[in-house]
Amino acid sequence: MKKTEQYAAQHRERHLEELKELLRIPSISTLSEHKGDVARCAQWLSEALTDSGLEHAEVMQTAGHPIVYADWLHAPGKPTLLIYGHYDVQPADPLDLWDSAPFEPEIRDGKIYARGATDDKAQFWIHVKAAETMLKTAGTLPLNLKFILEGEEEITSPSLAPFIQQHADKLKADAVIISDTPMLEKGKPALIYGLRGVAGVEISVQAAKNDLHSGLYGGGVPNAVHALVSLLDSFHDEKGQVTVEGFYDRIVTLTEKEREELGRVAQNEEKIRKDLELSELYGEEGYTFTERTTARPTLEITGITGGFAGEGIKPIVPAQAKAKIACRLVADQRPEEIMKLIEKHVAAHTPPGVKATVARILQGNPFLTPSDHPIMVAASHALKLAYGEQTALTRGGGSIPIVDVFERLLKTPVVMMGFGLPDENLHAPNEHFDLDNFDKGLQTVTLFWDELAASETL
Amino acid sequence: MKKTEQYAAQHRERHLEELKELLRIPSISTLSEHKGDVARCAQWLSEALTDSGLEHAEVMQTAGHPIVYADWLHAPGKPTLLIYGHYDVQPADPLDLWDSAPFEPEIRDGKIYARGATDDKAQFWIHVKAAETMLKTAGTLPLNLKFILEGEEEITSPSLAPFIQQHADKLKADAVIISDTPMLEKGKPALIYGLRGVAGVEISVQAAKNDLHSGLYGGGVPNAVHALVSLLDSFHDEKGQVTVEGFYDRIVTLTEKEREELGRVAQNEEKIRKDLELSELYGEEGYTFTERTTARPTLEITGITGGFAGEGIKPIVPAQAKAKIACRLVADQRPEEIMKLIEKHVAAHTPPGVKATVARILQGNPFLTPSDHPIMVAASHALKLAYGEQTALTRGGGSIPIVDVFERLLKTPVVMMGFGLPDENLHAPNEHFDLDNFDKGLQTVTLFWDELAASETL
Repeated sequence: MKKTEQYAAQHRERHLEELKELLRIPSISTLSEHKGDVARCAQWLSEALTDSGLEHAEVMQTAGHPIVYADWLHAPGKPTLLIYGHYDVQPADPLDLWDSAPFEPEIRDGKIYARGATDDKAQFWIHVKAAETMLKTAGTLPLNLKFILEGEEEITSPSLAPFIQQHADKLKADAVIISDTPMLEKGKPALIYGLRGVAGVEISVQAAKNDLHSGLYGGGVPNAVHALVSLLDSFHDEKGQVTVEGFYDRIVTLTEKEREELGRVAQNEEKIRKDLELSELYGEEGYTFTERTTARPTLEITGITGGFAGEGIKPIVPAQAKAKIACRLVADQRPEEIMKLIEKHVAAHTPPGVKATVARILQGNPFLTPSDHPIMVAASHALKLAYGEQTALTRGGGSIPIVDVFERLLKTPVVMMGFGLPDENLHAPNEHFDLDNFDKGLQTVTLFWDELAASETL
Repeated sequence: MKKTEQYAAQHRERHLEELKELLRIPSISTLSEHKGDVARCAQWLSEALTDSGLEHAEVMQTAGHPIVYADWLHAPGKPTLLIYGHYDVQPADPLDLWDSAPFEPEIRDGKIYARGATDDKAQFWIHVKAAETMLKTAGTLPLNLKFILEGEEEITSPSLAPFIQQHADKLKADAVIISDTPMLEKGKPALIYGLRGVAGVEISVQAAKNDLHSGLYGGGVPNAVHALVSLLDSFHDEKGQVTVEGFYDRIVTLTEKEREELGRVAQNEEKIRKDLELSELYGEEGYTFTERTTARPTLEITGITGGFAGEGIKPIVPAQAKAKIACRLVADQRPEEIMKLIEKHVAAHTPPGVKATVARILQGNPFLTPSDHPIMVAASHALKLAYGEQTALTRGGGSIPIVDVFERLLKTPVVMMGFGLPDENLHAPNEHFDLDNFDKGLQTVTLFWDELAASETL
């Protein structure tokens, strides 16, 4: 048994008692009456980070809830990791569905139950206790660490981007590590190396200055709904491909190795089809459901309105119609560019007699840390060593805004090394965290740091 | 001067006094507190018809407001006309916009002002006084007349169709005459010989059992809005023609003569375009605006909804989408058949993975009395003689449900011989009727009857 494992085992009870203390603070960022608790949590953390051997611990104010910072920078020439976590939690209602009080943590069957257990207090606590373990056993760390713990993740992190911009030098690192996602399942570690970005627009079509009586005008004037429908139908071909010129130009093609990896974690398409009560699934030809929904972009009409939608039929020729479109993007597509291409497409495909305008509404970059990047290789290896199982390399189909913020502002790779499990009830009653993953997580993290420190390539 | 003209001139003041009496009765069918007035109006009319020399005058009860009937049937071997009018009126508000009280008729500048003047009391009064005039001067009529005056036209005539079905024998006639539409303009008589029918359906598309998160499913499942948009876009080709198979099969093609006639009354397309603030008009290739909106059918999407239409963008893959379609039909298209063709089209064009259903909502037959039909020729000639101007033969793009009822249930041609003017404020304050048209109308009607009686072809 390694020294670190020994230490972790000997001090496990204390580590978990500290975690319980952290979980007892109802740091609910969404409810203003808990503002004091959120601040108290930040203060508690800054002290706990110091007690764990980290330095320069600081509660840094923002326009909203504070951000806690600490570091350990005594490994010159070695990589620097920025470890992100969030100490704020969701509200706990409905309280009567909890088997134990949400802010009175309880360990049952090797799981710790409390609001914020898996999302995200226990997950970042692993990194804090890993640092303590290494410092107490070796007297030093093999690389440099910076911690940034925010208190606004559950309210979409409004202060994070400005904070990072303001403190870019202080936060400079070779990689960002986030433990805030689930593993594939119990015993099966996973790394999410790709997420989709988003580009959202609203298309408005205007025909005549107002709705017209279809008896008097029907057949002789442009119909805004017809025009919009024709425009929208031009966005895809019969193979389910997006026809917007240049849409696919920047896409990093899936390698055979990646497709193999994704194939290992592929979802059961027949089960999905049945669960959704569909006669068939649908999508871009030549790709599996998992590839289509994570590694390929999509252009979805998310809403449409036009004319009269009440009961019965009002015989009009509608003057206006609108549709909203949300694209999910993959690396290296850029939302601003995609929106520009959509604008060009709309201009080129607008039927005669109507005006079409495009409003840009939503944007977020896709994320990709190539699965063969040295830091991913090291993380994958550490997980495999700790869990004794090959690490799944997966992609997510949605967006995690903080990931985009770090990648965009710090221009560093992001490693999403989650220790949660898919059924740990995050945002729901009886949220919990499996303590087996606390132990294996701590072990993973120390192995990961050692491996990175030894690597010449980062 | 003919005897009838002499008589009409001598008795004009009395005829108008009687009309004023009729206009004083606030026979507002839409307001239940005027139910008694509507009944009183029917009673007054039945007496007035008798006083005018007609026979068998009768106030006939229906499920709603009564229908007044009278006839004169002493011309065996001669044609029988059924003259339709309605004695109910619209409410008069806003009262403060009237220059004289709506139910205190006043003659100013040769026009009679009152609610119901042009719509429709003065118009059917012309026929009643024409009958009196002929009976008093010649002691007889050249043909047989039946009057049917209803009290529910402003509430969409719910009792008319059952009444006609119940009394089909009593109402049997060679033609139905309706004076309830405007002339082209002052001094320019017009006959409307065609109206469009209507067929209305709602198309519903269902994809998955509920809306799906576009991050998790986008690109891998059918999108109900995409499917609906593709379906709807398949209803027209690039030339603005409806692509539903068989849609145009039954259409009575416009003759060169008709196109010439319609050309004479054609609307100014440039003015319409400007008024509607359109960059261009739009419609089926090879037809004018007037032809497109009156003599050609149209399939208009009147409303569409699907997905999330609130503010911002909700990144979903919508499970449901709906559209309403209203077709305007021309003779001899049949709404039931057109709806069946639409159902077939939808079944054939529904994209994979979704279910589409069609609900039938609205139907009404188109109307056409061929402009070279003997009764149209006679009516046109009588108008020309009385007005000294060629009669415009026009079509309307909308539907007038009573016309359809008569044509469908009595299977007789309908002549729409309107004596109103387009600016007589029907349904609005200061409704009025130009008394010049009362005089010329009376003259027209007597000439028309003489001509029909002399004709061998009806």
